[in-house]
Amino acid sequence: MLVKNKHYITIWIDKNNPKVVRTIDQTLLPHQFKIVSLKSSDEIIKAIRTMIVRGAPLIGVSAAYAIYLAALEAQKKCRTIYQFDRYIFKKSEEIKNTRPTAVNISFAVNESLKVLMKENTIEDKIAAALNCASLLSVQEILNCKKIGEYGLNIIGKISKSKKGKTVNILTHCNAGWLACIDYGTATAPIYFAHKKGIKLHVYVEETRPRNQGASLTAWEFLQNKIPHSIITDNAGGYVMQKGMVDMVIVGSDRTTLSGDVCNKIGTYKTALASKDNNIPFYVALPSSSIDKKIKNGLTEIPIEERNLDEVKYISGKSGKRIEKILITPLKSKAKNYGFDITPARLVTALITERGVVKPIKSEISKI
Amino acid sequence: MLVKNKHYITIWIDKNNPKVVRTIDQTLLPHQFKIVSLKSSDEIIKAIRTMIVRGAPLIGVSAAYAIYLAALEAQKKCRTIYQFDRYIFKKSEEIKNTRPTAVNISFAVNESLKVLMKENTIEDKIAAALNCASLLSVQEILNCKKIGEYGLNIIGKISKSKKGKTVNILTHCNAGWLACIDYGTATAPIYFAHKKGIKLHVYVEETRPRNQGASLTAWEFLQNKIPHSIITDNAGGYVMQKGMVDMVIVGSDRTTLSGDVCNKIGTYKTALASKDNNIPFYVALPSSSIDKKIKNGLTEIPIEERNLDEVKYISGKSGKRIEKILITPLKSKAKNYGFDITPARLVTALITERGVVKPIKSEISKI
Repeated sequence: MLVKNKHYITIWIDKNNPKVVRTIDQTLLPHQFKIVSLKSSDEIIKAIRTMIVRGAPLIGVSAAYAIYLAALEAQKKCRTIYQFDRYIFKKSEEIKNTRPTAVNISFAVNESLKVLMKENTIEDKIAAALNCASLLSVQEILNCKKIGEYGLNIIGKISKSKKGKTVNILTHCNAGWLACIDYGTATAPIYFAHKKGIKLHVYVEETRPRNQGASLTAWEFLQNKIPHSIITDNAGGYVMQKGMVDMVIVGSDRTTLSGDVCNKIGTYKTALASKDNNIPFYVALPSSSIDKKIKNGLTEIPIEERNLDEVKYISGKSGKRIEKILITPLKSKAKNYGFDITPARLVTALITERGVVKPIKSEISKI
Repeated sequence: MLVKNKHYITIWIDKNNPKVVRTIDQTLLPHQFKIVSLKSSDEIIKAIRTMIVRGAPLIGVSAAYAIYLAALEAQKKCRTIYQFDRYIFKKSEEIKNTRPTAVNISFAVNESLKVLMKENTIEDKIAAALNCASLLSVQEILNCKKIGEYGLNIIGKISKSKKGKTVNILTHCNAGWLACIDYGTATAPIYFAHKKGIKLHVYVEETRPRNQGASLTAWEFLQNKIPHSIITDNAGGYVMQKGMVDMVIVGSDRTTLSGDVCNKIGTYKTALASKDNNIPFYVALPSSSIDKKIKNGLTEIPIEERNLDEVKYISGKSGKRIEKILITPLKSKAKNYGFDITPARLVTALITERGVVKPIKSEISKI
């Protein structure tokens, strides 16, 4: 998508040095747009942990690039193929442990390992790892494009039923191009509809504690000229009560075969408000984020508990500087859960790259 | 309640000067505890507008004190009783227009006007205005005490059913002693239960955008040794899903005869999550905040739309200074609604100073 009118994807190989991965430091947005270089698997691991890169599809692709950089490291460090493979396996575990909730990291790491283990020489393994990361990246872009096309139909129908009046969409967190490689999942239908000239406006829930809505989604929308208003997560219920929202669309970090959706903390409350006001609630996701092994989202998906300082402190711009300030009593305790589960009964449909399906096993298992 | 082990109420007449009202500047909490003097009706009006004083019961009593200070001003400015009364009426309108949602301000102003208009001399009118403010203040304290006793029963029963294990309570915003004169509405049962030795823990939703939960309720609880954890508003649904909450208790700015509750933005989403998880949802309120004229909360209660900078900027402590930082793109629009409506069907019961009632007309009209 566009940043200052120039097209960017969120992760790529440096055109001057194929041993360097380049990405946007998302912790600095919306105040600073900065491209950073990641030169080792450990640097990618750290980038995933500290959320320089974040969003389920992007951390998946980042993980594949981490395997590629690990393979380059192993080439230098290891004398035998056996040692090389051991190094890769060790790094794989480290990468998988960075963030537990999204299924994308282990999916990407497993894909990389699979292609890498098929090769017999170190050089071929390295090439296979790089190729795998690139293919996953391209696949994510194509997935988002398809999701955008399917979602566009839905927005188009609402626009038609409103006789061309503004379609009001509400979204939570950032399931935008920043979370993916391009287009985004939840945002792809919005970008496609906007491009087609459909009049729309998006309520962006700020998404505490890390404010991905207010700092990333709003920034994306500004750059790409999508009309939007930032609201607190609390206000999401009110705008729905008042008939100011036509549809909700969010992303997903992991979806079960029965249609339970694990997504950014607060999605569940937003889904409850949608249901209570008969507003369709769509979840946009690549089918790779469906975890077919899990039956019960609420009891089986591990929910990341993050540092409580994310609740007690917040960063922002003061003059030209970025400041971190304390917003609670210093001595109060806090708890910081990263995700929650939206039960299938609250979901209208899943928008995937393979089509729009109901959140039920018989439909999900077909895609 | 206690601040640094000393007992305070939230508003009082200066013991050295009966023409000065003293209060706690709540905009500086939790970082600074500062008592300020309010010396004119305009200073009180400004304090209500800027939320130096806030919370439905407290702004009601503040409004009554504003009428008293207005009466003192009128004594200096006006030659005749007619002019005096005109000044008071003019000020009454200004006071009523400070904050539209809570019913307490107009209730208190009308009470003051009623007693003031019964008197025939300026001196008697002034004495009546002061007396009215004091009585309203005492009445609020007694109301909160009764609410505390009724609510204590409810917490006691849950504690008993859990065989003395920790009762987990969730609250939104600050319906604490800071919002009232003493004890609080939603917090009174908590303080009473804690004093009685019932083991409890409170999840405090931070309550964006003004963070009254994180900055006021948490601060009150710290001062009065109530075990608590601050969570984002988004996390309220998750802790309920996970069975970590036994009851929810919140305050109310205005309650209709049919039991719809208008309270701080986000209460509605929290109530939906309670309902979805079969967790009892209690609303604690003095009966004076019941608006018997209104039939439909959603369409008839005016919802305050506040400055969008409250969403885009946030204040907190950086080192020893209080800093205000930008947390969204500078150019993004925002919307800032102050309250929402929790329909009666989501409310388990109302805890009032006159007893615990179901949120239905036949019960509410009796109290």
